[in-house]
Parts: sequence; C-alpha cells; structure tokens
Amino acid sequence: MAEAAAEIDAALDVLIPRPEGPESRLFEAMRHAAIGGGKRLRGFLVLEGARQFGVGRDSALRAAAAVEMLHAYSLVHDDLPCMDDDDLRRGKPTVHKAFDEATAVLAGDALQANAFYALAEPETHADPAVRAELCRGLARAAGPRGMCGGQMLDMLAGEAGGPLEEAEIGRLQLLKTGKLIEFAAEAGAILGKAPPQLRHAFAAYGRDLGAAFQIADDLLDATASAEEAGKRTGKDAEAGKATLVGLLGIPRARLHAERLAAQAAAHLDALGGRADLLRALADYAIARRS
Amino acid sequence: MAEAAAEIDAALDVLIPRPEGPESRLFEAMRHAAIGGGKRLRGFLVLEGARQFGVGRDSALRAAAAVEMLHAYSLVHDDLPCMDDDDLRRGKPTVHKAFDEATAVLAGDALQANAFYALAEPETHADPAVRAELCRGLARAAGPRGMCGGQMLDMLAGEAGGPLEEAEIGRLQLLKTGKLIEFAAEAGAILGKAPPQLRHAFAAYGRDLGAAFQIADDLLDATASAEEAGKRTGKDAEAGKATLVGLLGIPRARLHAERLAAQAAAHLDALGGRADLLRALADYAIARRS
Repeated sequence: MAEAAAEIDAALDVLIPRPEGPESRLFEAMRHAAIGGGKRLRGFLVLEGARQFGVGRDSALRAAAAVEMLHAYSLVHDDLPCMDDDDLRRGKPTVHKAFDEATAVLAGDALQANAFYALAEPETHADPAVRAELCRGLARAAGPRGMCGGQMLDMLAGEAGGPLEEAEIGRLQLLKTGKLIEFAAEAGAILGKAPPQLRHAFAAYGRDLGAAFQIADDLLDATASAEEAGKRTGKDAEAGKATLVGLLGIPRARLHAERLAAQAAAHLDALGGRADLLRALADYAIARRS
Repeated sequence: MAEAAAEIDAALDVLIPRPEGPESRLFEAMRHAAIGGGKRLRGFLVLEGARQFGVGRDSALRAAAAVEMLHAYSLVHDDLPCMDDDDLRRGKPTVHKAFDEATAVLAGDALQANAFYALAEPETHADPAVRAELCRGLARAAGPRGMCGGQMLDMLAGEAGGPLEEAEIGRLQLLKTGKLIEFAAEAGAILGKAPPQLRHAFAAYGRDLGAAFQIADDLLDATASAEEAGKRTGKDAEAGKATLVGLLGIPRARLHAERLAAQAAAHLDALGGRADLLRALADYAIARRS
C-alpha cells in the first residue's frame, strides 16, 4: 500500500500542477488536501482491481487519483467550521486552518471537478464508454444518494441528538463512506471491461469492506490517540455521534467488523490466488491502528 | 426564454426528486437552489445550440439542466458567509439563510455531483463518446482553470484591495463566468456531433457573449435596484471589487459590452437565419434590466 500511495501521489502531482500567477493559491490548497498522507485505501482498491483485469498502469493510476481527489474534497468540506470543525487531518492542519475558509470551500469544489476531468479525459481509457461509465459511477457515489446524502444524515443525527438504530447507522455509513469505497472497488472492473458478474463481485466486496472499514474507524476514534490516528480522536462520543461502536459496545462492534471483513473476502472466491492482496486488505482494514 | 426556463425547471424536477426519509432536507435545499428563478441563460444556450443540430429535446434538456445545476451550485457556494455573504438570490433567501450553512455546503456539493451524473447517464445520449465529452467539457469549465479558479482570483482581488488592470479583470471574468457560458454554447454542438469548425464557432460565440453578459451584470449592479435585480446590488463598489465598470466608467463599459455582443453574433454568420435567436440573445444580454 505504501508503494501504491507513492505512485498515486506522483499521479496527483501531474493532475494538480503548480501554475504561475495568483490562482496558484487554489492549486496549493488542492495539493495540501490531496497529496501526501492518507492510507490511500480507495486508490489502492482501484489499482488492485485494475490489476486483476490487466489494465494499463497509467489508466489505473489516473482513476485511482480521481477517486482520491474526490475523497480529499469530502474531507476538506467535512472539516469546515460549519461541519465537523476540525483542525487536524492526516497529521497536518486542515485546509481552512492552513489557508482560510473561502479557499477551503473552493479547493474542495475544484478537487471534485478535477476528479471528473481526470476520468473524462481520453488519457484515462481509449474507450469513451469506459470513461462515461467511470464518470457515472463516481457521480452516483459522490452525490445526494451517496456521500453528500450520508453527510447530511450525519449532520441531522448530530443535531437531533436522539439515538439512531442499528439499521439507520448502517444506512448513514453506507451512503457517507460505503458508496465511494464500493465504486473504488468496482472501478478496476469497469476499466478492464469485466463481465457483469465479476463487476458485481467487486462492488459487493467494496460494500462489505467499506462497512468493516468504517467500524474500524469508529473503533479507532474510541480507542486510539490523536497522534496514532493523525487526526483528533474521541470526537464521536464527544459530539454524541451515532456509531455502531457507541450502540453495540467495543467487543460486539469488533466482532461485527470481523464478520464483514470475512464476508468481503468471500465475494472474491472465484478469483482464487490472484485476489490474495485484496483479501489481505480486508484483514488489514480491521486490524490497523491508524 | 421563459418557455425554455419552464422546460428546464421540469427537467430539474425529475433530476432532483423529493425522496422520503431524513435526507429529504438535502434534496429540498438542492431544489431551492436550482428550481425556479434565474434567467436560465446557460440552459437556453444549450437548448438553442442543440436545436441547430437537430438534437432530441430530452437529450438537450438533460444537458441544459446539468449546466444549470452546476451554475446553481456555484451561486450557493459564492453566497456563503465565508465568500460573498449574501442573503438574497433570485428573489429568495439564499440556501444558508433558508436552511443553514452546512446544508448549503452539502447542497452545492451534491448539485455539482448531480450535474455530472445527469450528463453521464445513457439517457442523455446514446453515444458514450458524447457523454464522456460533455463530462470533460463541464469538468474543465467548473474546475481550477475555470469557475473555481476565477472565484479564487475574485476573492484575492477583494483582499488585496489594489486596482486590477483591464487584462486581469478580463481574465478573472473569463474564468469565473465565461468558461461555463462557453461550454453551454458548445454543448449543443457536442450533442449534435457537429464538425469541429462549427463547434469552435459556438464556443467563440459563448466566450464573447459571456464577456458581454458579465459587463451587463456589473452595469446592473452599479445602476439597478435590488428589487429589479432579485439580488443585492451596489455590492461591487461597496466591496471594492474590481469590475470593468469600475475601471472604465459606465459609458465606456457599455460600449465595450455592445462591441462584444456584436462580435459574439458575428461568429454565427455561417449559420444564417437559423441562428437568429442566438443573435438576438446577444442583444438581450446587454439590454436587460435584471
């Protein structure tokens, strides 16, 4: 994953250049948000999925970088004072702290647009049907029935203060983080023009992996130090945020995450040994300490 | 244009539905921002361009609605307290006033994603190459070398306080509003798979029309009442914002806009009478009072 992260950073360095002139501030803020740091789980999923189908490395890296730009934009906006109001992200000051609030709004907006631009350009794939399908998948994962919808539910749950039920929390997290992880797992199959049943297997893997990953994230928030996690921790409990960890308690939540990770790995049974790395990723998702 | 606006509203009503459940708040905020009000200049350009090339009305309306969603998102974010801090837009309270700031950030984000989704879906055009090219064009117009870059320049000009030169103002406005209007004018040619020289003519028309339109907007800001304009006026001078009207004075700025409008119309000479409405639009752009 560290190797993949370095390759993704190199791709982002090309996709978010350092232009001359006054608007360089916007590009610097985009680079601050997108380059360096982060586990690159989503980008790694794109690359590993693409490898299963013999997709060229440059194509896969552009798609991986696009998904990471989309993810970085969501973090910049989630960290804004009017949202989660966070000062620290990936061990660095958040964009509105390092720059200012207006620049953070714009850098997030520009990262979203740039993600679609990276997918839609001919360099990403010679077949325009593949590019259109990538744009469609990313737009669905990012929009009101995906990430934005999940973040809205999260804000409303925080305001209402009442406890959410397990099914509601599951839906919130499926939208907020699950849909983009699902798309990241599916993108390699789209790039490789995989048959529908394989594409669906990767999507199902991503869905379960994303759910396991989210619980692991909430477990970290409840148990790790800010130094370990590279961001403020303990904030879910402090904000009265609804998480499965809060609802089920730490041991049962951990068990649930383990079950989801096993289920994620099982979706890739048909691929045999080729998918060992992706199966190992499911284990890593729940064992990590940051 | 009023007819086109009603058709575009109907398309938006389908593309931004009213779902059940707690996330309905997000969709309501998106609808508040995107449906009803606005001149629909950009959507009208898509529709009129598409008509020149015999594009099906449903295709053209989806693309027009996508461009209007992108435009609406930019207004929602520009109106935020950390940006231009406006309370009134299209004669209604701005989204962060009618809802709250977090919802306004999310509604803007979701409108951007939804614009790409509308373009990328097969319903927009049977040919995926057309859909990919539409996504690419919109992403370029919206990103750091388009709208977001222009807004960054605008914020920086406001902070610096020093007077900008005519060329700098022209570049700021080309990025901030010109690129999206250029894409709107070009989108019909993309949908109609027009030959390159015609596609370029439409883009050039959009570029000059956009520049004329922006000067007319600044003239309105300097001369119209808030009631006429449906938004707060006089704010450029108040904020010390750099506009061509401030730099050249009202009579010379008006002359410049007229010259640009004539130049815009001339790009469509090859189309003859078919393009009369688009030529008339160039006149309207500089004569309007709202």
